[in-house]
Amino acid sequence: MPAQNASNGGKWKVALIGSGNWGSAIARLVGKNIKERSDEFDTEVKMWCYEEDFEGRKLTEVINEKHENVKYLPGVDLGDNVVAEPDLIKAIEGANALIFVIPHQFIIETCKQLEGKVPSDTQAISLVKGVDVKDGEIHIFSEVIKEHLGIECAALSGANIANEVAKEAFSETTIGCRDIEVAKRWARLFESEKFRVAVSKDVLGVSLGGALKNVVAVAAGLIDGLQWGNNAKAAIMRIGLLEMKRFALEFFPGTEPETFVQESAGIADLITSCLGGRNRKCAEAFVTTGKPFDQLEKEMLNGQKLQGVQTAKELHQFLKARGKADDYPLFTFVYRVAYEGVKPDTITAHI
Amino acid sequence: MPAQNASNGGKWKVALIGSGNWGSAIARLVGKNIKERSDEFDTEVKMWCYEEDFEGRKLTEVINEKHENVKYLPGVDLGDNVVAEPDLIKAIEGANALIFVIPHQFIIETCKQLEGKVPSDTQAISLVKGVDVKDGEIHIFSEVIKEHLGIECAALSGANIANEVAKEAFSETTIGCRDIEVAKRWARLFESEKFRVAVSKDVLGVSLGGALKNVVAVAAGLIDGLQWGNNAKAAIMRIGLLEMKRFALEFFPGTEPETFVQESAGIADLITSCLGGRNRKCAEAFVTTGKPFDQLEKEMLNGQKLQGVQTAKELHQFLKARGKADDYPLFTFVYRVAYEGVKPDTITAHI
Repeated sequence: MPAQNASNGGKWKVALIGSGNWGSAIARLVGKNIKERSDEFDTEVKMWCYEEDFEGRKLTEVINEKHENVKYLPGVDLGDNVVAEPDLIKAIEGANALIFVIPHQFIIETCKQLEGKVPSDTQAISLVKGVDVKDGEIHIFSEVIKEHLGIECAALSGANIANEVAKEAFSETTIGCRDIEVAKRWARLFESEKFRVAVSKDVLGVSLGGALKNVVAVAAGLIDGLQWGNNAKAAIMRIGLLEMKRFALEFFPGTEPETFVQESAGIADLITSCLGGRNRKCAEAFVTTGKPFDQLEKEMLNGQKLQGVQTAKELHQFLKARGKADDYPLFTFVYRVAYEGVKPDTITAHI
Repeated sequence: MPAQNASNGGKWKVALIGSGNWGSAIARLVGKNIKERSDEFDTEVKMWCYEEDFEGRKLTEVINEKHENVKYLPGVDLGDNVVAEPDLIKAIEGANALIFVIPHQFIIETCKQLEGKVPSDTQAISLVKGVDVKDGEIHIFSEVIKEHLGIECAALSGANIANEVAKEAFSETTIGCRDIEVAKRWARLFESEKFRVAVSKDVLGVSLGGALKNVVAVAAGLIDGLQWGNNAKAAIMRIGLLEMKRFALEFFPGTEPETFVQESAGIADLITSCLGGRNRKCAEAFVTTGKPFDQLEKEMLNGQKLQGVQTAKELHQFLKARGKADDYPLFTFVYRVAYEGVKPDTITAHI
């Protein structure tokens, strides 16, 4: 047990770093649980919120008055113990458990602001989707956080569409954490009757599942656009899942194959992304409208980046540098469709 | 190589036993392949067809004139080397490779008619969906065929909606066959650019996948009816797949776990059934209309039986006799919803 925890009776004082759609859904869940499990958790949670204007007022003020993230998760009561805080350093003050749940492009900048300000016995968990590819290397965000802050960092990922979690539709997730006792504490922080948590030691596999599935979801969307039917879509999902698993095992030794074929972070996240999800949807439109992905991003995603296509590009750079592009035909095919003009209906000749 | 094969230069002479929707789709595929692979296969295939009237004529006559199964697969050219034959014994005359592709309720009766009439070196493959439960035991149809006829029998199963296979939409399947050389010959009989075949030694797993997935598809349909969203549906599919695998491993020693999580006969067939499929559809209607399953069968399936609900009942009898019903909560839940009035929205309390 970390020393700091002992100072407040071994309780965890939790801070959320992030307050978007997924961050707010998680804040609501955590806020509820810490009230009910006050023997283990301090019952207030600070939620760092990037300050912005909302209808002429400050967003944090509106959140704290209405207990609702009116901008990113409207209509959902966050509870009165979730407190939005615009100052990052104030948000984490006294916290010994940090939940990172911000868009991946802000992770490194945020970590830099936190450097030297986080006690070394602090626990962290990354709910950040995706991976960071830089200089031909793939970095898992829980590892990025660990290295920047010098603290342990777990990962949480699963079939977790934020709005469904927020309205308490049944859902599952996977927590990857090397220390299984800490994993269990994280599980008690997140778990509810409708949000099931499984724990695993496989931090890498849990993180990779959430990033790689987006590429497969693009392929599934292409099949939807082609109207090839459910046999073909099921085939692509199966082939994609095995490619994800193979990639993880080849380049991230120690990854557990079971994470992909048994855990929510693997197979279930893949399924939910291939059934709904923006990657699937934009890829379908790519086929039916003939518009390029960057135009579809603008028209359909309100300026957000299409993660699957971006990840396919990063994976391709990674694989090409190692002479392995042909060993991952589905990933490579998605890249070529998005960036090299390869036709979606040639998929069976490629995979 | 069986002696009989040697007598015709080692070629296989294929007969299809069955001519429904799936049987006709397969007849078309096989007919095309044997023409192209005449070094290995006799280029005509007889298709046993249960004789019935079609618009005042005999169905077999119409099929042989139009090269189209006007009743069960209209609009699809079967090719001129697929010959419908109303007499079962004539249909198999001279054949050394039998494809069984009839509804499961006719298997035993058909086998009885064939007893003593099939040379012992004949190869067989079962494309029959489902399993036979009798006297509290589960029988795999490839084993039923093997025992009745005293011949080897493989199994073929996968994400194979018949109409999609018939119109050459991309699809995959798995052949389970203990003799891997024979499996490869079966693969060459069925495989095409758009119909991919994987081979496996796991006859039991391939057969069980096709039966058990129907129960999970019912559960997925309940979730659709409840409108709980994609997270919940993905969770049910994941839980269901693992329950299928666990069931097979517990009661059919020698089954390979990979068949369920890697093969088309496992995960992909489950996905396609949970995306479309009659079990999913009727279960959705069960929730949204409040009508019992037997009424929905009549209204939605033109008198056909709803396999998932039937299989759930048979599995329940099997599990209950062994005191194991509680160990398979999803299977048991589907049974209780269908037969004991348990409410679909209580699923999270049961599984």
